[in-house]
Amino acid sequence: MIKVVLLGSGNVAYHLALAMKSTNNIELVQRYSRKNSNAQLFDSSVPHTTNLNKIKSADIYILALKDEVIAKVCKSLKHLNGLLVHTSGAMGMDVLDSRFRRGVLYPVQSLSINQKINLKNVPFAIEADSIADQQLLQDLASELSDYVYELDSDQREKLHVSAVFANNFSNFMFTCAKDLCDEHQIPFEILRPLILETGRKVQYLQPMDAQTGPARRHDQDVIEKHLNQLKGQHRDIYKLLSLAISNAYKRN
Amino acid sequence: MIKVVLLGSGNVAYHLALAMKSTNNIELVQRYSRKNSNAQLFDSSVPHTTNLNKIKSADIYILALKDEVIAKVCKSLKHLNGLLVHTSGAMGMDVLDSRFRRGVLYPVQSLSINQKINLKNVPFAIEADSIADQQLLQDLASELSDYVYELDSDQREKLHVSAVFANNFSNFMFTCAKDLCDEHQIPFEILRPLILETGRKVQYLQPMDAQTGPARRHDQDVIEKHLNQLKGQHRDIYKLLSLAISNAYKRN
Repeated sequence: MIKVVLLGSGNVAYHLALAMKSTNNIELVQRYSRKNSNAQLFDSSVPHTTNLNKIKSADIYILALKDEVIAKVCKSLKHLNGLLVHTSGAMGMDVLDSRFRRGVLYPVQSLSINQKINLKNVPFAIEADSIADQQLLQDLASELSDYVYELDSDQREKLHVSAVFANNFSNFMFTCAKDLCDEHQIPFEILRPLILETGRKVQYLQPMDAQTGPARRHDQDVIEKHLNQLKGQHRDIYKLLSLAISNAYKRN
Repeated sequence: MIKVVLLGSGNVAYHLALAMKSTNNIELVQRYSRKNSNAQLFDSSVPHTTNLNKIKSADIYILALKDEVIAKVCKSLKHLNGLLVHTSGAMGMDVLDSRFRRGVLYPVQSLSINQKINLKNVPFAIEADSIADQQLLQDLASELSDYVYELDSDQREKLHVSAVFANNFSNFMFTCAKDLCDEHQIPFEILRPLILETGRKVQYLQPMDAQTGPARRHDQDVIEKHLNQLKGQHRDIYKLLSLAISNAYKRN
């Protein structure tokens, strides 16, 4: 049985607590949060404290906190025997104080309290200072998810940049599409099934193989026709991305 | 009962034929294709011809053909009494010869023979020369799909540009993410659930509300850190899109 103390009461803490409850080999012995917000969303049989000096003994302390408060909360902690991990994709392991055994447990998904999700299907990137702690974290993560990856801080940083493209930038493409629809009184929902299919397709295809459209076909006539209909940033984006796609699919 | 002749044997023709078979109010009276390719995929009880001069009489003739051959096939047709429609998102209605009653029946989805799809959930954009034909096309499209939209050629052209952003460009963001993963020995599948969720989220949220990430937060430190890790086109794309996102979410 792995004993866990969970610090935080936001989106990630919520989903971790829920998932831990349904495993047989993890015991959530305590929750900490500064103001005990969202208390009604958590299992009331798990003791809660708002006092960092009253953290119970555990094997793993999970800091499911916002990036900007991880270091501060970590500094306020008294000595703890267990492994201390944060759940951030953007922060290195060294944001945690070096007087602790340190690690990272990063769920690679956009988690929200309002959104049901099966954590078993969410990939986890893990990292720890020692081989023993790497194994401990692997044991914990494998209880929560079927997809556990060991990535070091440098790889996790690159993964985070990749995720900006995969999630933030692709979502902004949907925003641009909606802007154009709005301009011409076209209901945006007409594009929603296409958007869903775009995401579904790369679940089994490589994105390079799923690519379609005028830029991939080097169809300069259509590209010019489209550019003439666009202005400002939409035009700049269309131009740069069409060029990049054309370059990625060089003619034979 | 609406009598239909279907011209073409590719992805769109395949899905239309399949969907028409399952309706009660459409009768597919004949198929035409130049070489009768994919014959085994179509209902063998529907007569097929490779001769444009032997097209049977019908209410609607659907040209489910590649953009570049629509005009040519249309010109080769002898006089027909029914309504002639093409299925292209990129072509105006006027690519069809004006001696015919003309229309457009455009399924807004990336259709592939290898991919099962329920056409009922696929939005159709329709257009016709006359109100009577608009109604006829509405009757046909409503048998095939629960989501039928009347768009004129100009709107459909704008929709096509929007779809380039929503589908082609977002897919290319996945390609960029995979490039970065590959560079740093990170398995791309770690991002697949995030990508699927990105598409799912905008099924019920507006993309403007679904946006997250450093650019939306105006987090210049993270943006600079990311830019320093990128080079070439990835860097240019990151820069332009972060700027565009920042502009879209002006600080109060």
